[in-house]
Amino acid sequence: MTRPMLLNAFAMNCVAHQSSGLWRHPRDRSRDYRRLDYWLSLARTLEAGCFDGLFLADVTGVYDVYGNSPDAALRSAMQIPANDPFSLVSAMATVTDHLGFGITGAIPYEPPYAFARRISTLDHLTDGRLAWNVVTGYLDSAARGAGRRRQVEHDTRYDIADDYMTLVYKLWEGSWQDDAVIFDRESGVFADPARVHRVHHEGPYFQLDAIHLCEPSPQRTPVIFQAGASPRGQTFAGRHAECVFIGASTPAAARSMVTDLKTAAAEHGRRGEDVKIFALLSVVADETDAAAQRKLEDYRRFVLPEGSLALMSGWTGIDLGAYGLDERAENVESQAIQSAMRGLGSRTVREWGEALGIGGAASVITGSPASVADALEAWQDESGVDGFNLAYTVMPECFEDFVRLVVPELKRRGRLRSGYEPGSLRQKLFGAGDRLSATHPGAGYRSD
Amino acid sequence: MTRPMLLNAFAMNCVAHQSSGLWRHPRDRSRDYRRLDYWLSLARTLEAGCFDGLFLADVTGVYDVYGNSPDAALRSAMQIPANDPFSLVSAMATVTDHLGFGITGAIPYEPPYAFARRISTLDHLTDGRLAWNVVTGYLDSAARGAGRRRQVEHDTRYDIADDYMTLVYKLWEGSWQDDAVIFDRESGVFADPARVHRVHHEGPYFQLDAIHLCEPSPQRTPVIFQAGASPRGQTFAGRHAECVFIGASTPAAARSMVTDLKTAAAEHGRRGEDVKIFALLSVVADETDAAAQRKLEDYRRFVLPEGSLALMSGWTGIDLGAYGLDERAENVESQAIQSAMRGLGSRTVREWGEALGIGGAASVITGSPASVADALEAWQDESGVDGFNLAYTVMPECFEDFVRLVVPELKRRGRLRSGYEPGSLRQKLFGAGDRLSATHPGAGYRSD
Repeated sequence: MTRPMLLNAFAMNCVAHQSSGLWRHPRDRSRDYRRLDYWLSLARTLEAGCFDGLFLADVTGVYDVYGNSPDAALRSAMQIPANDPFSLVSAMATVTDHLGFGITGAIPYEPPYAFARRISTLDHLTDGRLAWNVVTGYLDSAARGAGRRRQVEHDTRYDIADDYMTLVYKLWEGSWQDDAVIFDRESGVFADPARVHRVHHEGPYFQLDAIHLCEPSPQRTPVIFQAGASPRGQTFAGRHAECVFIGASTPAAARSMVTDLKTAAAEHGRRGEDVKIFALLSVVADETDAAAQRKLEDYRRFVLPEGSLALMSGWTGIDLGAYGLDERAENVESQAIQSAMRGLGSRTVREWGEALGIGGAASVITGSPASVADALEAWQDESGVDGFNLAYTVMPECFEDFVRLVVPELKRRGRLRSGYEPGSLRQKLFGAGDRLSATHPGAGYRSD
Repeated sequence: MTRPMLLNAFAMNCVAHQSSGLWRHPRDRSRDYRRLDYWLSLARTLEAGCFDGLFLADVTGVYDVYGNSPDAALRSAMQIPANDPFSLVSAMATVTDHLGFGITGAIPYEPPYAFARRISTLDHLTDGRLAWNVVTGYLDSAARGAGRRRQVEHDTRYDIADDYMTLVYKLWEGSWQDDAVIFDRESGVFADPARVHRVHHEGPYFQLDAIHLCEPSPQRTPVIFQAGASPRGQTFAGRHAECVFIGASTPAAARSMVTDLKTAAAEHGRRGEDVKIFALLSVVADETDAAAQRKLEDYRRFVLPEGSLALMSGWTGIDLGAYGLDERAENVESQAIQSAMRGLGSRTVREWGEALGIGGAASVITGSPASVADALEAWQDESGVDGFNLAYTVMPECFEDFVRLVVPELKRRGRLRSGYEPGSLRQKLFGAGDRLSATHPGAGYRSD
């Protein structure tokens, strides 16, 4: 039995997202992230390739743990500058009909009332193609942008997020009944006030007493993405996430995360199939294995190792700038980093940065269409994931290559559907309607 | 000497903005505010008509002063539902090259660090066509959406806004030097860290210690719009506004506001020509005066007076629902409302609502192209305003009529330019470059 494979492109409204320095490649166009044409063209490419979605990461801070300064990130353009991802959605929706948009929004930096409205607006404008990647933040620099000295403690961030989710579910699901808008030109009644409900929320972190500003959008609650890997993060995902995005260096490691996530979902009364899991990968494809390998070697010449190390330092909170680039890898006194780096075969800190420079945290699959398809199929079957978030290397070449070379091969094998189903993003992903499944906690706040 | 006339369309991401009930008209399409096509088509129409900008109003609350409930506003769709205006910008930018976008953002509901990034992003994506209409909020219902019991006191809102402006100027003008981005593929330096400055802000209301997340956009600070009419609001406008939007029922009343605003600007060391003033009007045009009058009478049949009264109650804080619709107008015990209503010739509260139903707070000019052009010219010359914000009646018919009938007449008279000048919105409006004038307080925060 062939399981269908879900595909998201993984990008960010910036120059360098995961791969460090590839903006230096003569064919790279990521410098054009400021231009609408760049995004319109990417959206068209992905829809031509039947991608389920474009997943846009985001951080509202800067990677300044490395060397205790943002200098390395600035020099390498590593996730800085970083423009707002939500602003791209309506433009890309004008040139696509099916592509989903999974946008990262950070709970600490988005007041919920206005945020709920922005999400509903985009769900309306895209005709129900919006997903929200819920993040709780991890950079102290982002907290300083909000006038705080540092972030609140890790597990508390999830408590805050739980309260926030409850509030926005109430607005999205409970404020306006489906039949609230009557739009009767004759009688002059647009909405029936008896079917529009004021939300009272007195949570530990958020309070609100207001009606939602928007009438129901196609999906009401957007498709909820989440990527928490910690135990508290997995509990949060088990409760809220409809799609989870995981980073794992091997299919076996991914399988154990898949098991944990399905267990966490079951503990919240949800079924395994209520949660789709996407693994992070990066693909370098060409006509033949040899050509793909040459392409990878060509890409490698442009890597900036410092940018990768700045990224890794930001993720782990460990300043790798305290070590020289030629320091031996085993001298770095951080178990988290040693474990993240295992398998990269790096002898020095510089070699770590170089190895991470292609795809960042993503494992890289290189080869001909058949080889890449073999590897993706094996990855999916061994891990039990539902699909992949593909991190970019050279933009937009890597996605154009994938669509031109690998997509037809996956379709031939019956792994990718030949075209889009009609309906909202949630309907496309789960096949059970536009709205939250009855087992999802958000569904409990419905008023009709 | 003929003075050029500036033109903005005045709208909102909702059904009924100023005119109450005209969504009932068989030709009205405002119900489609949720659809991208509606906005793309409007943007194309306005650019074909050489409009300077589309000015999008916004409120993040609901008009619930009338009858102490949102019911009248909901029934008449008066500014509720109200979707996010920023989400529309990038889509409309894909189908236009010159049209400016003036978007309302409320300081109490937009944390400054993320807001500054969203603005910079949109200024990038539109190639420097963004204006921000700075508002401080006036509805307690919006404050309740933010978990507060009511708004802070009026003048304090402006003190908060002054601090906010200082902070965002520092981010927009001072964080990244013009020459910070080097983008040298060879050496692998994207940005020179020595030319990217951390902003330290320790204001009475806002604190921040961070670099701006965006490289300089074409205008850096967007064109600043403001509409404060109170003494404290005029002081704020005199300091910050590059464009001011005023509501006045007669050219004489407008002239006195123009004088006050130019005086307020001078008190902050700015020149009169540094501030462009737009008056609110609404136009019903047709081939002949008689046809236009018939059109106006046709529109009137669809007005919902309660929606107008809900709007007026929200603006003034006076519950007009406490009076019956057939109560005599002079019995309403509010000087503010009596003065706002003077000249409408209304004998009852209902007649006030009906009179406001076409154009809302805007005076309505009705007639043939020649008559409308005469009236606009006279309005401009007698008041000294630089142009107009035109509130809609039946959408999009009223703007299509204006572009088809009135624009050619104004061009023939040399009041409207025949085409767009190149450059950013600020360059188009002031003819002196993309960046803030040296006399503007924001210019004082430049680092290069």
